[in-house]
Amino acid sequence: MIVVMHRGATQEEISHVCEHIVELGFKAHPIYGTERVVIGVIGDDHAKTEAMATLGIQPGVERVTPILKPYKRVGAEMKKERTVVNVGNAAFGAGKFAVIAGPCSVESEEQLLSTAQKVKEAGARVLRGGAFKPRTSPYAFQGLAEEGLKILAFARNETGLPFATEVVTNRDVELVARYADMLQIGARNMTNYSLLREAGATGKPVLLKRGMSATLEELLLAAEYIADEGNEQIVLCERGIRTFEPFTRNTLDLSAVPAIHMLSHLPIIVDPSHATGRSELVRSMALAAIAAEADGLIVEVHPAPEQALSDGAQSILPEAFAQLMEEGRRYLAVSGRTL
Amino acid sequence: MIVVMHRGATQEEISHVCEHIVELGFKAHPIYGTERVVIGVIGDDHAKTEAMATLGIQPGVERVTPILKPYKRVGAEMKKERTVVNVGNAAFGAGKFAVIAGPCSVESEEQLLSTAQKVKEAGARVLRGGAFKPRTSPYAFQGLAEEGLKILAFARNETGLPFATEVVTNRDVELVARYADMLQIGARNMTNYSLLREAGATGKPVLLKRGMSATLEELLLAAEYIADEGNEQIVLCERGIRTFEPFTRNTLDLSAVPAIHMLSHLPIIVDPSHATGRSELVRSMALAAIAAEADGLIVEVHPAPEQALSDGAQSILPEAFAQLMEEGRRYLAVSGRTL
Amino acid sequence: MIVVMHRGATQEEISHVCEHIVELGFKAHPIYGTERVVIGVIGDDHAKTEAMATLGIQPGVERVTPILKPYKRVGAEMKKERTVVNVGNAAFGAGKFAVIAGPCSVESEEQLLSTAQKVKEAGARVLRGGAFKPRTSPYAFQGLAEEGLKILAFARNETGLPFATEVVTNRDVELVARYADMLQIGARNMTNYSLLREAGATGKPVLLKRGMSATLEELLLAAEYIADEGNEQIVLCERGIRTFEPFTRNTLDLSAVPAIHMLSHLPIIVDPSHATGRSELVRSMALAAIAAEADGLIVEVHPAPEQALSDGAQSILPEAFAQLMEEGRRYLAVSGRTL
Amino acid sequence: MIVVMHRGATQEEISHVCEHIVELGFKAHPIYGTERVVIGVIGDDHAKTEAMATLGIQPGVERVTPILKPYKRVGAEMKKERTVVNVGNAAFGAGKFAVIAGPCSVESEEQLLSTAQKVKEAGARVLRGGAFKPRTSPYAFQGLAEEGLKILAFARNETGLPFATEVVTNRDVELVARYADMLQIGARNMTNYSLLREAGATGKPVLLKRGMSATLEELLLAAEYIADEGNEQIVLCERGIRTFEPFTRNTLDLSAVPAIHMLSHLPIIVDPSHATGRSELVRSMALAAIAAEADGLIVEVHPAPEQALSDGAQSILPEAFAQLMEEGRRYLAVSGRTL
Repeated sequence: MIVVMHRGATQEEISHVCEHIVELGFKAHPIYGTERVVIGVIGDDHAKTEAMATLGIQPGVERVTPILKPYKRVGAEMKKERTVVNVGNAAFGAGKFAVIAGPCSVESEEQLLSTAQKVKEAGARVLRGGAFKPRTSPYAFQGLAEEGLKILAFARNETGLPFATEVVTNRDVELVARYADMLQIGARNMTNYSLLREAGATGKPVLLKRGMSATLEELLLAAEYIADEGNEQIVLCERGIRTFEPFTRNTLDLSAVPAIHMLSHLPIIVDPSHATGRSELVRSMALAAIAAEADGLIVEVHPAPEQALSDGAQSILPEAFAQLMEEGRRYLAVSGRTL
Repeated sequence: MIVVMHRGATQEEISHVCEHIVELGFKAHPIYGTERVVIGVIGDDHAKTEAMATLGIQPGVERVTPILKPYKRVGAEMKKERTVVNVGNAAFGAGKFAVIAGPCSVESEEQLLSTAQKVKEAGARVLRGGAFKPRTSPYAFQGLAEEGLKILAFARNETGLPFATEVVTNRDVELVARYADMLQIGARNMTNYSLLREAGATGKPVLLKRGMSATLEELLLAAEYIADEGNEQIVLCERGIRTFEPFTRNTLDLSAVPAIHMLSHLPIIVDPSHATGRSELVRSMALAAIAAEADGLIVEVHPAPEQALSDGAQSILPEAFAQLMEEGRRYLAVSGRTL
Repeated sequence: MIVVMHRGATQEEISHVCEHIVELGFKAHPIYGTERVVIGVIGDDHAKTEAMATLGIQPGVERVTPILKPYKRVGAEMKKERTVVNVGNAAFGAGKFAVIAGPCSVESEEQLLSTAQKVKEAGARVLRGGAFKPRTSPYAFQGLAEEGLKILAFARNETGLPFATEVVTNRDVELVARYADMLQIGARNMTNYSLLREAGATGKPVLLKRGMSATLEELLLAAEYIADEGNEQIVLCERGIRTFEPFTRNTLDLSAVPAIHMLSHLPIIVDPSHATGRSELVRSMALAAIAAEADGLIVEVHPAPEQALSDGAQSILPEAFAQLMEEGRRYLAVSGRTL
Repeated sequence: MIVVMHRGATQEEISHVCEHIVELGFKAHPIYGTERVVIGVIGDDHAKTEAMATLGIQPGVERVTPILKPYKRVGAEMKKERTVVNVGNAAFGAGKFAVIAGPCSVESEEQLLSTAQKVKEAGARVLRGGAFKPRTSPYAFQGLAEEGLKILAFARNETGLPFATEVVTNRDVELVARYADMLQIGARNMTNYSLLREAGATGKPVLLKRGMSATLEELLLAAEYIADEGNEQIVLCERGIRTFEPFTRNTLDLSAVPAIHMLSHLPIIVDPSHATGRSELVRSMALAAIAAEADGLIVEVHPAPEQALSDGAQSILPEAFAQLMEEGRRYLAVSGRTL
């Protein structure tokens, strides 16, 4: 940690800060520049989170700059080999690529089963489907709840596909974990820390979506809550961030993929459906994600988007999905990967 | 609702959309323009939330434009008189102005009580203090939990000030509601809909903070979840939104105050501490909020910000708070209001 | 255009708006809904730009919604075949793909020539290099000016590569056009409309970069200024937009590629160097752009990024560029394209 | 400047960076922490702008953190007394407050003169009016050009009010400076550096608007271009930044006012008209700006906003302006200021 003093900071203020640093259990190392003084703080950086705030407001201090990343368990510095997350026979990470597909919401046995069979044929390895839907409006369809979980389990039985489904409240963690193969934490709940902890504690693989305005560092800190429960089976998901551009529902930040690969050992997949909110853009963003070396995709597929109870505008037909997978295979082959 | 057809939409597509509209229970009213067709959808707009999504992807449709606001109970259109929220002898809304003040976190009985006494003397009507802290890092101080609630209750006893405190998980709603006079839902939980519902169901006044990247419409829809539980004792809070500007922790969107007054009957207060993240900016943003006719303020005050366990950089000293209140009184007087 | 009246708008207000619409030369078509009235405005939408503003503030009007896109010449609706832009033997658009490469700034004959030879060998078809640099700080290197243009012309002579270079002020349009094969308008000047017009009037192909906070519609309207000068040889460039994420210099909005392909007949290329600001991310964003079917790339290459006078952190070495082009070829082949 | 080395940086890399620092003319001061090494760079920070980029990409370096602000002339560190900018008998800065008012565009002698007389009566000290309008669409009204300047000069003659007007291209700087009392650089041209220099070189006071996505640091660096021409008669203007919120045209960042007062000696005024884009919000944001201790306001006033050729939706009537000024006077009085 580096403490930058104001230009006119007095020797007394400098000494006071140095003493405060020592009181906090660190060593202080001042550097006298031509125009101002900066003070290096030496010691275990991970103990410094709290210290930073209090140092920053000592008299004479202009600002404090952290040196270490604030996350530990999920950081690339702490663990060199890349984590592989397994869900059924799907594997995400370290060169392994898999696709999660299915409708936004589970609407009926028939809708889900037919979709599941088709996405499986096309090459998807995990089924998705929402039983609990966090909706911006209290008047929008909120999902079939446990009935939806049962339908998902039925489809798993019929097709052999494991499934990922969202859990939106602590109240349902135990219930959802009883049925699901992978727990999804949605963008709206990325900073619902108690939910992160409880989902992590189930020991099930967790699909953690980036919050709408979360920085990559905040996404990794959210993952750290899960990892802190002893669960590193975490798949991160880039699903678009909120910007000023109105044409797309969100703005896909595809550079998050190589960035997360630099910063963390966790796999990261891409959700082109929520990122764009437009079915016409799903194909090209999915292919781009493959070329960017994402560890997987999660795609909304619906047999009749016109009648979908949620997110119809961004769902693609099973036929379009099959074609996307066909093209995806060819792009994956360029980097020596397979579906 | 207005359906805009593509320039080249065929008569068949237009008829198909009109039929779909009728099937959904509405009347269709096409207008043939010089270059394209738009179709008015007539009927109860509040039933249209779901319909919109499915209409938007019919063949030939370019886009669908809603006409009505998606919220009902909290909207200015539905209830003409302004809501007043009462917490102890504090009143927010309809010309009533009150200030909530106190430390970010409850740290000790001594810290809290001394702060409570000083903010009361200066004119605050409600005490604030966090017992459960949602922190970006799992390694940061997370609050004293029930111990903190007890300290808050003790300070209430000693000073007569009611208190507002944050609840961060459904697990604690009942516990927090047992102690607190007002439940705070933080920015990170604005889209934690089950928490909103449970907090609303307690019947206690709710202080609802705007999410970091929430639009005003989304803030009002979050409030709608609380109101849908039969609880309209809701105080909205503008606490800064996330933008590209790094100088301040967030960007205070002060125009939210008059905007909410146009759109809703609920009171809205301003949090200059979180909005700026810098104690030097708290005073001027607090005074600006008064001039913008906010219905109150929530201000972080700490007897020794240098030693605060959280948010020290944005806390002001009790003396600075007293001076701010003094100036605030004079600005309030201009619009005929009092503390 | 659709005029939405307030819920309580009086019949008099409705009539007044209808009359105003007729005065403006359009036909008014009111629809009486269950809760409010909307009025369709029929006539030549492109004459409505000005009308919109004045209709929007008539008494009783809540808001006005445009139906038509505000651009004409560059819109996909107006011209069905895709535009191909030719610069030397490079072609951009309609399935043609080409790469522009070179240093951020022209620094010396030796630096430029050696880079030019290497990027040509690797497959680039156009050389880039800044002679006039728009820099945020007046104290940063501002380019070699005409001396830089001469060096670019010399490199063209030696290698046969045409070159693109930025023009930052009307004062230099004529000078730059005398030397360059393609004029670049940078992100900072996207809304410098007189520069757009003058650059367009030279008849040279124009490379138009998206402004840091420009919507796609604004980018197309900026292109419309150039096209309005009778010049449709325009290549749009996505180079990242400004968001809250600090890890990358900007956020690459790759969905702009398929979006522009929907909205316009103009080609669009991607600049992974400025979009990310980090040389480690250039490769994967370049490959992703190819998979998203961008019509080309513009990449910063420098023989010694450590010593570059500008943007060293985002420049890649000629060897890394050659390898990128090799991989790019294989991704292009998937969609049947070549370098 | 501080250079942060990677965790695993070798002694060789550390030495190499230290040597590079010495080569650049500075002294290197390494600090060996428990987990990594940081190196202080000592010397004249203002020479370091270029150095930073090249240091940042040396092997083993993780990142480089600047210590000094990148602007000099406009910074509060360099000049302690606050700058007062005088335009006619209006003064901005150092406790002096003045209001600029008038229509968005000059439309006719009658429109301008009647507005000028009314805003003068109400207390405005400077007239505004656009003769050259930078418009997003090439098909929107672009202003009356020199004819507009003549009308402004005529109104000055009749009323005694000096005027500010925008210059949008280098081609017109000399022309506009011949007529105007204050040159306005609009948000779209804040990074048109040659225009900044030429406007500065005229010696006239310059009104510099913050770009739509400009940080405060970038705004000050733009002002630095003007100051670098020997002209410190600069009034900065906060006019809203671009965010995700659609309700307002822009988001007024009012905290820019106290922030600029911390960082710079230049005055800063607020434009509530462009910031909100809605006439209903102008009053409260103007009053809030006064309470935030802005050095002035610039307000759009039009005698018949319904018929305005530009920006009608955000213009207020002369009567509303007079009332705003009346209220403004009372808020100014609280801080001992006058109109």
